[in-house]
Amino acid sequence: MSITEPQATLYHNLAETLAAAIQQGTFMPGSRLPAIRRCAASHQVSVNTVLTAYGILEDRGLIEARPQSGYYVRDALPSLTYQSPPRSSVRSPGSKKLDLIDAVFAAQNHADYTNISLACPQNSDFFPTAKISRIMASLLRREPDLIGRYALPPGSLRLRREIARRSMDLGIRISTDDVTLTHGCMEALQLALRAVTQPGDCVGLETPTYFYLFPLLASLGLKVLEIPTDPQLGLSLDALELMLQERRIQAIIAMPNAQNPLGSSMTLEGKKRLARLVNQYEVPLLEDGLYAELQFCWPLTPAVKAFDENGWVLYCSSFTKTVAPDFHLGWIAAGRFSQELARLKSVSSLAESRLLSETLGIFLESGGYDHHLRSLRRRYAAQLEEARGIIARHFPHGTRATRPSGGFVFWVELPGNIDSVELFHRLLQEKICLTPGALYTLSERCNNALRLSCCYPFNERYIWALQRTGAVACEMSGIAAGVA
Amino acid sequence: MSITEPQATLYHNLAETLAAAIQQGTFMPGSRLPAIRRCAASHQVSVNTVLTAYGILEDRGLIEARPQSGYYVRDALPSLTYQSPPRSSVRSPGSKKLDLIDAVFAAQNHADYTNISLACPQNSDFFPTAKISRIMASLLRREPDLIGRYALPPGSLRLRREIARRSMDLGIRISTDDVTLTHGCMEALQLALRAVTQPGDCVGLETPTYFYLFPLLASLGLKVLEIPTDPQLGLSLDALELMLQERRIQAIIAMPNAQNPLGSSMTLEGKKRLARLVNQYEVPLLEDGLYAELQFCWPLTPAVKAFDENGWVLYCSSFTKTVAPDFHLGWIAAGRFSQELARLKSVSSLAESRLLSETLGIFLESGGYDHHLRSLRRRYAAQLEEARGIIARHFPHGTRATRPSGGFVFWVELPGNIDSVELFHRLLQEKICLTPGALYTLSERCNNALRLSCCYPFNERYIWALQRTGAVACEMSGIAAGVA
Repeated sequence: MSITEPQATLYHNLAETLAAAIQQGTFMPGSRLPAIRRCAASHQVSVNTVLTAYGILEDRGLIEARPQSGYYVRDALPSLTYQSPPRSSVRSPGSKKLDLIDAVFAAQNHADYTNISLACPQNSDFFPTAKISRIMASLLRREPDLIGRYALPPGSLRLRREIARRSMDLGIRISTDDVTLTHGCMEALQLALRAVTQPGDCVGLETPTYFYLFPLLASLGLKVLEIPTDPQLGLSLDALELMLQERRIQAIIAMPNAQNPLGSSMTLEGKKRLARLVNQYEVPLLEDGLYAELQFCWPLTPAVKAFDENGWVLYCSSFTKTVAPDFHLGWIAAGRFSQELARLKSVSSLAESRLLSETLGIFLESGGYDHHLRSLRRRYAAQLEEARGIIARHFPHGTRATRPSGGFVFWVELPGNIDSVELFHRLLQEKICLTPGALYTLSERCNNALRLSCCYPFNERYIWALQRTGAVACEMSGIAAGVA
Repeated sequence: MSITEPQATLYHNLAETLAAAIQQGTFMPGSRLPAIRRCAASHQVSVNTVLTAYGILEDRGLIEARPQSGYYVRDALPSLTYQSPPRSSVRSPGSKKLDLIDAVFAAQNHADYTNISLACPQNSDFFPTAKISRIMASLLRREPDLIGRYALPPGSLRLRREIARRSMDLGIRISTDDVTLTHGCMEALQLALRAVTQPGDCVGLETPTYFYLFPLLASLGLKVLEIPTDPQLGLSLDALELMLQERRIQAIIAMPNAQNPLGSSMTLEGKKRLARLVNQYEVPLLEDGLYAELQFCWPLTPAVKAFDENGWVLYCSSFTKTVAPDFHLGWIAAGRFSQELARLKSVSSLAESRLLSETLGIFLESGGYDHHLRSLRRRYAAQLEEARGIIARHFPHGTRATRPSGGFVFWVELPGNIDSVELFHRLLQEKICLTPGALYTLSERCNNALRLSCCYPFNERYIWALQRTGAVACEMSGIAAGVA
């Protein structure tokens, strides 16, 4: 069949239109393109024209055909894969590491800097602030006494009941009495560590991990043994089992769902095995569930705590990332350590504000939370894909990244010898703030990585900052941008 | 001069009227009676009649004449005096002590029990809840974003500025940057201890002291050396100096103004000497200023921190006892440990809610706080006197008590061998909750003491509970009530 001029124009035009839509993120990586017949109908062309246009896009590497399923936008960013790390050694964070954390933290306090890394949602339009304000105002009117009374442990029954009820979504079966309210997830982790360890003990940390854990452990006189992770599947259970067999660790901190900074989640089998291991070796697991409700799938995959037979899992979470960032209300279900935990909370910071707890409790009761979570999940998933698309186009060739299963952070590895601490300092001069990979481990193996966060409004400024980060990385490495 | 019948009736009637007024607390112990001429004028009697009536009251021991000054209502309760304790030894709280604390704490969670001991103001009409509600509601309207943004350290500049400004009333000169906001005074103390001690260290505690300090110290692996106190003048500086000379303690916790549970305040000279000692021996002093703004005198007597030359005093305080009990907002000015403290706060519980901090900051700016404090001071002073009067009449003869210089708690020593833990258990059966003296020390020397608190509404129920406590103590000891 020879191709006539008008026909060629038709499918070339269609191919260009679709390519632009992919470029602009109308079709996200991983998403399915319209079916052939539907596309033909909506663009008023023949099925053959669509097939040829899709063929052109496939040749350009923009889309891929999947048998029995259709055409999909290709993931432009190569995935990170597991690399067996050298055997870890017990460490304590040095002052150099702590100073770097301070420097990063100081940098992000500049209100006029553009932050592309910190996991602090600043999108107030992402949160049901109007509804929460209304609940609080109504509570202040109905119960003016509330703020004139001393808040005592165990605090709001209503909130604890809602927490126990909602935990079932993650397979966790706890009662109201098992829940201790805390000042955010950070205090939950801090108290849990104090409940289950002694100074001098060694804590197994999946790394890369949330960087504040290092100064926290150091402040409690605890040492660190890093557990390697798979960029998509989370902590390596084989490595962990070896550490447990050798009795090298007295506690574990892990984030089995939507891990920070990787965005990875463990498989169901992995979670069950982790629960079995900690119960068998009787080593407490501090399960950080901060992003578990922001998993992109529904129903949510369960927590490790769901398979905890003898109470060795201490589940820590908070509402700071999902509904009321300012409230700093967190909680812990500490299993066999529940009583000890409640006592520690009392003598460490007594109790949480009843005004805030009741407000949150009423909001959770009202049923708006699930709707809100669905919209957060959609928005973060979309923003993550958009950010990954920008990285694919603007970061040095060879850049790889994780594809998160939830939350709003992900992990990027730059090619070559790009030192992300140097990148951090260079970008500070342009008022862009990022967190270098070196923060997330005590080893040297993340020096070319960085965490990015998509909890900010995707405005021109944020997009410019991402693009500029890529441009500076290209400059530093001499590697051209893009995947092609 | 012979006395005629009508004259005798006159001065007897006047004497009875005044006696009843004293009994009912219209004239408080320590207060001055009306001057002779004024009394004569207001009661339409002669000066001689008044003089004779005052003489009758003086004979009955109800009032006393002070040269050049007038007549005063006598203090019905004997004062506690300093008794040199045996040399203290280093201790750690045993599980029996911790269990007793738990039992007391559990008891006070019964909403239908009458609490006469806990230092948790429940008088919502004592607090400017209406004004604070209005400020908060207005803030929620004006800045709906506030609760949708992640609260980060160092938190509300407005509140920190007000704290720095107001601290000058206590002679403390600090800047906004010196202030770290905390989750109540309890967290301030907890963080301060973690900043200045290592597990295994020994902390000097003036005792009797706030009982939650014992489990807090135990949870941090710290030992206790008790510093004796004078019931009116607070901690014994001679004893402290000896401990410092012998290098037996690595930190000190003290409450130099309106001490809990004694209500005592150190003298100005004592405070200066304490500041000199800790700077000379370079041993950190955690100065608990929780009740310092509730001193009954004005201007306030200064804090020890006012005389701190080289930053060895960590000043901890909170607004929970004075303005917003529910908010649990506290702060610390940690002197030479400021940076370390701010870092510890970040990794232990990140930051305080901006909504609560800004609300409190606006309230403090608005100038209503001083007025509010004045009314709190008057009310607590009056309630303390009233409670002391009830004790004088209803507790066993020989009962002694402190006369607080501020705050709302005081310390009562029962005569004989009355075991206040047994008293506590007996009263629980009648749904009255008190805190036995044994809680406030690791030694045995406070077993016959108890702390009482006047931060509750002085309604019939509270007064009945106080009287009933006296009656049970009389029963237990076989000693009759009253001072006469």
